[in-house]
Amino acid sequence: MSYFPNIKKIEFEGVNSKNPFAFRHYNPEEIILGKSMKEQLRFAIAYWHTMTQDGSDPFGNPVNLRPWLGETEMSTARNRVEAFFEILEKLGADYFCFHDVDIAPEGNSLAEFFNNLDEITDLIKEKMDQTGIKLLWNTANMFSNPRYNNGAASTNNAEVFAMAAAQVKKGLDISKKLGGQNYVFWGGREGYESLLNTDMKLEQDNIARLFKMAIVYGEKINHKPQFLIEPKPKEPSKHQYDFDAATALQFIQKYDLIDDFKLNLEANHATLAGHTFEHEIEVARINNALGSLDANQGDVLLGWDTDEFPTNVYDVTLAMYGVVENGGIAPGGINFDAKVRRSSFEAEDLFLAHIAGMDTFARGLKNAAKLKSDGFFEKLKAKRYASYQAGIGASILADKEDLKSLTEYALNHDHPTLESSHIEYVKNLLNDYIH
Amino acid sequence: MSYFPNIKKIEFEGVNSKNPFAFRHYNPEEIILGKSMKEQLRFAIAYWHTMTQDGSDPFGNPVNLRPWLGETEMSTARNRVEAFFEILEKLGADYFCFHDVDIAPEGNSLAEFFNNLDEITDLIKEKMDQTGIKLLWNTANMFSNPRYNNGAASTNNAEVFAMAAAQVKKGLDISKKLGGQNYVFWGGREGYESLLNTDMKLEQDNIARLFKMAIVYGEKINHKPQFLIEPKPKEPSKHQYDFDAATALQFIQKYDLIDDFKLNLEANHATLAGHTFEHEIEVARINNALGSLDANQGDVLLGWDTDEFPTNVYDVTLAMYGVVENGGIAPGGINFDAKVRRSSFEAEDLFLAHIAGMDTFARGLKNAAKLKSDGFFEKLKAKRYASYQAGIGASILADKEDLKSLTEYALNHDHPTLESSHIEYVKNLLNDYIH
Amino acid sequence: MSYFPNIKKIEFEGVNSKNPFAFRHYNPEEIILGKSMKEQLRFAIAYWHTMTQDGSDPFGNPVNLRPWLGETEMSTARNRVEAFFEILEKLGADYFCFHDVDIAPEGNSLAEFFNNLDEITDLIKEKMDQTGIKLLWNTANMFSNPRYNNGAASTNNAEVFAMAAAQVKKGLDISKKLGGQNYVFWGGREGYESLLNTDMKLEQDNIARLFKMAIVYGEKINHKPQFLIEPKPKEPSKHQYDFDAATALQFIQKYDLIDDFKLNLEANHATLAGHTFEHEIEVARINNALGSLDANQGDVLLGWDTDEFPTNVYDVTLAMYGVVENGGIAPGGINFDAKVRRSSFEAEDLFLAHIAGMDTFARGLKNAAKLKSDGFFEKLKAKRYASYQAGIGASILADKEDLKSLTEYALNHDHPTLESSHIEYVKNLLNDYIH
Amino acid sequence: MSYFPNIKKIEFEGVNSKNPFAFRHYNPEEIILGKSMKEQLRFAIAYWHTMTQDGSDPFGNPVNLRPWLGETEMSTARNRVEAFFEILEKLGADYFCFHDVDIAPEGNSLAEFFNNLDEITDLIKEKMDQTGIKLLWNTANMFSNPRYNNGAASTNNAEVFAMAAAQVKKGLDISKKLGGQNYVFWGGREGYESLLNTDMKLEQDNIARLFKMAIVYGEKINHKPQFLIEPKPKEPSKHQYDFDAATALQFIQKYDLIDDFKLNLEANHATLAGHTFEHEIEVARINNALGSLDANQGDVLLGWDTDEFPTNVYDVTLAMYGVVENGGIAPGGINFDAKVRRSSFEAEDLFLAHIAGMDTFARGLKNAAKLKSDGFFEKLKAKRYASYQAGIGASILADKEDLKSLTEYALNHDHPTLESSHIEYVKNLLNDYIH
Repeated sequence: MSYFPNIKKIEFEGVNSKNPFAFRHYNPEEIILGKSMKEQLRFAIAYWHTMTQDGSDPFGNPVNLRPWLGETEMSTARNRVEAFFEILEKLGADYFCFHDVDIAPEGNSLAEFFNNLDEITDLIKEKMDQTGIKLLWNTANMFSNPRYNNGAASTNNAEVFAMAAAQVKKGLDISKKLGGQNYVFWGGREGYESLLNTDMKLEQDNIARLFKMAIVYGEKINHKPQFLIEPKPKEPSKHQYDFDAATALQFIQKYDLIDDFKLNLEANHATLAGHTFEHEIEVARINNALGSLDANQGDVLLGWDTDEFPTNVYDVTLAMYGVVENGGIAPGGINFDAKVRRSSFEAEDLFLAHIAGMDTFARGLKNAAKLKSDGFFEKLKAKRYASYQAGIGASILADKEDLKSLTEYALNHDHPTLESSHIEYVKNLLNDYIH
Repeated sequence: MSYFPNIKKIEFEGVNSKNPFAFRHYNPEEIILGKSMKEQLRFAIAYWHTMTQDGSDPFGNPVNLRPWLGETEMSTARNRVEAFFEILEKLGADYFCFHDVDIAPEGNSLAEFFNNLDEITDLIKEKMDQTGIKLLWNTANMFSNPRYNNGAASTNNAEVFAMAAAQVKKGLDISKKLGGQNYVFWGGREGYESLLNTDMKLEQDNIARLFKMAIVYGEKINHKPQFLIEPKPKEPSKHQYDFDAATALQFIQKYDLIDDFKLNLEANHATLAGHTFEHEIEVARINNALGSLDANQGDVLLGWDTDEFPTNVYDVTLAMYGVVENGGIAPGGINFDAKVRRSSFEAEDLFLAHIAGMDTFARGLKNAAKLKSDGFFEKLKAKRYASYQAGIGASILADKEDLKSLTEYALNHDHPTLESSHIEYVKNLLNDYIH
Repeated sequence: MSYFPNIKKIEFEGVNSKNPFAFRHYNPEEIILGKSMKEQLRFAIAYWHTMTQDGSDPFGNPVNLRPWLGETEMSTARNRVEAFFEILEKLGADYFCFHDVDIAPEGNSLAEFFNNLDEITDLIKEKMDQTGIKLLWNTANMFSNPRYNNGAASTNNAEVFAMAAAQVKKGLDISKKLGGQNYVFWGGREGYESLLNTDMKLEQDNIARLFKMAIVYGEKINHKPQFLIEPKPKEPSKHQYDFDAATALQFIQKYDLIDDFKLNLEANHATLAGHTFEHEIEVARINNALGSLDANQGDVLLGWDTDEFPTNVYDVTLAMYGVVENGGIAPGGINFDAKVRRSSFEAEDLFLAHIAGMDTFARGLKNAAKLKSDGFFEKLKAKRYASYQAGIGASILADKEDLKSLTEYALNHDHPTLESSHIEYVKNLLNDYIH
Repeated sequence: MSYFPNIKKIEFEGVNSKNPFAFRHYNPEEIILGKSMKEQLRFAIAYWHTMTQDGSDPFGNPVNLRPWLGETEMSTARNRVEAFFEILEKLGADYFCFHDVDIAPEGNSLAEFFNNLDEITDLIKEKMDQTGIKLLWNTANMFSNPRYNNGAASTNNAEVFAMAAAQVKKGLDISKKLGGQNYVFWGGREGYESLLNTDMKLEQDNIARLFKMAIVYGEKINHKPQFLIEPKPKEPSKHQYDFDAATALQFIQKYDLIDDFKLNLEANHATLAGHTFEHEIEVARINNALGSLDANQGDVLLGWDTDEFPTNVYDVTLAMYGVVENGGIAPGGINFDAKVRRSSFEAEDLFLAHIAGMDTFARGLKNAAKLKSDGFFEKLKAKRYASYQAGIGASILADKEDLKSLTEYALNHDHPTLESSHIEYVKNLLNDYIH
């Protein structure tokens, strides 16, 4: 059966198409920088926003109309698998992502939850085999259940830690079963509500403990997905430990996790932390830790995670330039961690919104490829940092200078000639790539 | 001669004093937690805000009335030394801090600047010898001069890097001459105005290069102040590399500077980065990197560094509790990186404002000491994390568990009993310590 | 029956009490500025946060333990009335506030909802008569139901407007039945999710239309509560029309509603809009529009409405000073629009949290009264604005000057003598009132 | 003589031009919506950012290289007039704007300042006559001089009020002399540094007093420029009274200034206040108060007024759509209240930056015109609000309904049919207009 009988497979029809259910920019097989767009972009759809999100907000009841609700929680869960793969196939997305609680009801015990997960992942595996769609990453939701009120790995309650560990083990078992390429940790409650009653060191030590257990377990079951930390500064926590890319890197350096962990970066989390998305991508990239991207956009005038579908071509172009510079995003991908606005409550909006996001990333990729081909940024930087290519600059980079030698140099070359950045002109030129 | 003939040495007169030029809470010799308040607090006064700040702002001309302006820049510089030590002595501050450009004019060449510095530091040394007042830290201003438009260590211009190196060398020579206990790097322009033309990796590598040169040079001249990085997220830069404590730690870990560098944390910089001051102090403390404090306060409804004198007893209490937990702040101190409001333009406001700040920190220290003596936070946390003292919790901390064993445990202990934090009650009790 | 058999009436026991279930600062019958504290503070408890809030957040499931859940929605609703009045009485709060949907289930039709409201308000009336507790204000929730997705009065759908009107009529009927002293409009969805598809003028005109209908209807049924608008800048809307006090005043001026409407101001809404609470209170006060207060506090480092119980004595002192200046808050009151943190999930936390809030406001009131009795701010301002008491200043205030006469004056009095504000000293003195 | 001998008049060369000193989008004579682009856009250049800004910031010394510095302040002032009109002519900007202090030195007395102004405005008038360039608006700088420390009209010092009045009189005299089309009030210090010592009512009354004096004086000298208030929330003040468009409207309504005052809106001020630029424009427009625009852009991740040249085509398109909806911006204009970044310190950057801004507004205008011609937003809104065109909706708009009649309607039409906004699809379509 079909949940969307009136919606056909979304095809590329080009910029003049008036068909709302068509791509006007995303052409999956078009070759960009030597690879097809679909290989470059590795689009994934998020189970939570697409299948379980109900449109409620802190001041509003559920509003979303979804055709897959069943009689029982488990029948709904089974219907969702059907509907999800229909959406994936019709949108032509090759990957998907989920939390454990997205796909199966928790029931009344951990054992029941794990049984439910087994049943649903059997269904998912079947669908994957039929369609060739792959699991970009899965994760354990360790923030919604009341037991995680004060954190999961960073909880003050050792029994809760044990339950978190059990969810992670199950998550890795599922990852192996479904051939997951990455495994994500987003610590929504790994932080604090109040610093007054928090032992920050114990809590961070325990997060590292859980991560190490995960590495060891992966080796034991002979399944090594790329582990990813997803930074976010706050919400629901007052302060989350993985505040931003640099903070997460500080953590994995300190606890010697750097060989096993990279970062899953999200646009809206970047701006909530006071950074641009491209900044976070660059920080990860130069530390060899760019793992995967959660594609969405925030509203910089709002102070919470709005998770809008990405439609800002400017920002996406700069993000995709970072991906291009990184030599691609694999084994990560572009996961739409984005939800339809509350006013877009019809089921077909799920298609319209993903089309908007995919078209926007297609534009961004094409713009980035053009910038790369033209050497736009490379020429700009080569000229700007030219003084390090020879003379005293080269000597500095070669670590041949010290404070004394440089002081002598400075006293003899007292008035360096500075050059204007002409940055307004640069931005004007850049607009021609984006518009 | 005296610049403040009508102001006597500020004495402790107790809470009932109506004398504006008296301490009502700061009693230097009072013993708190086994040491005198002055030993605990190690107050320092900042040359820049006290001696050179003129009250201008981006929309306003200078307004401050200062009695020490001379005929020439050098005579003003000499007068300032006189006036500064009069202020230090009258306030009873044992320490001071300065940037190179605060104390001497830059002149027309680096050589002239260095000569000026030599002359003024001779004067300063004389005053230090006479008064026993000590240098908490000095630093090189590598952000005001036009040559640092695009950064100092992170500049795109190698000749500018050389000049920065020369200033650092001179700074360390001065530190040795004056017995400086710490040496600070605040990278106001070590970041970017636009990411579009920035090579972040090269720039950060070069900052690390300069820091290493400083360590080597210190060893060479046999003078090892504690090196400190002062994080700030932005302003004047669009984005400064040392965004916050965690980011600075990530940097010193990555470049293996962790044995030589700690952090100089500022309250207003913390809030600009989205953190509380006590958060930043805790992050530094648990990473063994709490170096020194820049005491001020920001206005959380304003988006720039207001550097107000600290008068918020609540915040200062929590900051001082972190210092107490750290076993004190030495060899760092409490440096008033604070400026009088533009409307407080009279010279005597320098006294009134420092008295306000010192009284506030005295209150904070006494509150923190009481919280410590009563074990307020310790008991709270001991109870809250009790589950890690025995059983499965102790086994987790002893690294005896793995995902499999914890899963077994979890399946057998499915419904942990959670306890309320009663955090509103905790805050109500805490108010009795603060008010 | 009692829902809290172990909790007795909360009594004032003074600052040395170790009893968590006692007031240490709020002494209801103590006379402050000529009236008892309870008359000055007019404390109200909010039905929504106390009775219906379940501790869920955008990333977490319900967690609050509440002893009053029944078999059906209506039995729960009836139990809540019992439990609520037990809480009101034990805390000694004389007033309460509610939205229609807080007290009764909406059922499957508007008619069913109204019937449910009738039944429950009968119960409430009975309780009011028994206890003497009064209704500070009620309101209609016109933001949670899916039909209000795009606003209530500002909806794009005229049928939805009609339903909003029906809820308002019912709200006024209930207000009359229960003797409500005020009636509040908080327009959570009266704003926009996207400006792209919004007709701002039509929407604002329609809000004014609904307000005028409410005034007319009140006159018709011979019941005139004080109408109040509650400003909030955003959340759940991207942008709410009643952004802040000034914006709400602009609205009631423009639509000639100024004789019938005042403002209900909330601390957390103030800071979300970029203002302090005392600023908003002052704006309302000098425009003769200070109606009532929603007591809570936000976290200025977080960008959403956290609705914490107020424990910041400094802020509450300044807020209460505004109330004192206003000659009191009646017929408004101090309504705890505050919710326990998610970690305070036990039912007794409702008592502990309100005690914290009431003690904090008691401190604030006492501090404000002392500031008033001492003429602290009055003397400060009298001195600061003294130049308007005579000479050219008095002539300006008497509207006797014009640009020409003042130009002549200025040319003859070219260099005004300015005086320092000594604002740091003022803040230091103020601390002695607060701490 | 020429200050820019190597720069020719900037001409439109089209999108393929590689000439940095050419317009690629702004074609002054091209007809858009029935008028030439230059008539639609009415570009003005700001004296302060272009002629007097030196590139300094709170942490940095002046850096800008400007070829017009003379031997004395007055010779510099005269040179600036020459250079400014050369820039205006070469850029083809028809309008300019200035503060009094931008064009002439203040000297040692008000009388000297006025003499200087007379001399320089003679020169300016001569240039205007020669070139046909017109004065969009002038204003008095009443925030930089130390006497305005605590405000100008809102000062606590009556003599300072008199000096402000004198500057306004002179400003209006100059406006008459130069045929100024508008006269602006931006109250940088009309607000407070601390609410603790502020009499908000007196201060706001006095601002209204000064505005009324200006209206009366304009009538007296028979010169009526459009008076404009420029809202900004803060900086340099802690809190400025004219926070945003709605607040300024509240003020002019309250003090009955609505017939004489409109708003001068700035993009960066809008975002500092928590609004989008298009929001502020819409608020002004529907209140018949859209006066003029200050074109720039801020950085939403920074908390101060960065005044960047506008290059964001998306935002400018929406702003220009508001202008188009308004039937144009005359007698206001598009004034570049924008400054080159500190790294763009060469004089020719003044050209490159204005070209970037003018090209961006040209794109924005063309996009807005296309949106208008296609009826993009009009169709969207007509469909969305269709329910108000007939039936109960029309009856509501005709003020024929009341709470009772609507309740009856609602009880009979209980379940309105809502329609999805498809807002993600709308944004995707909109991208095709912008990119």
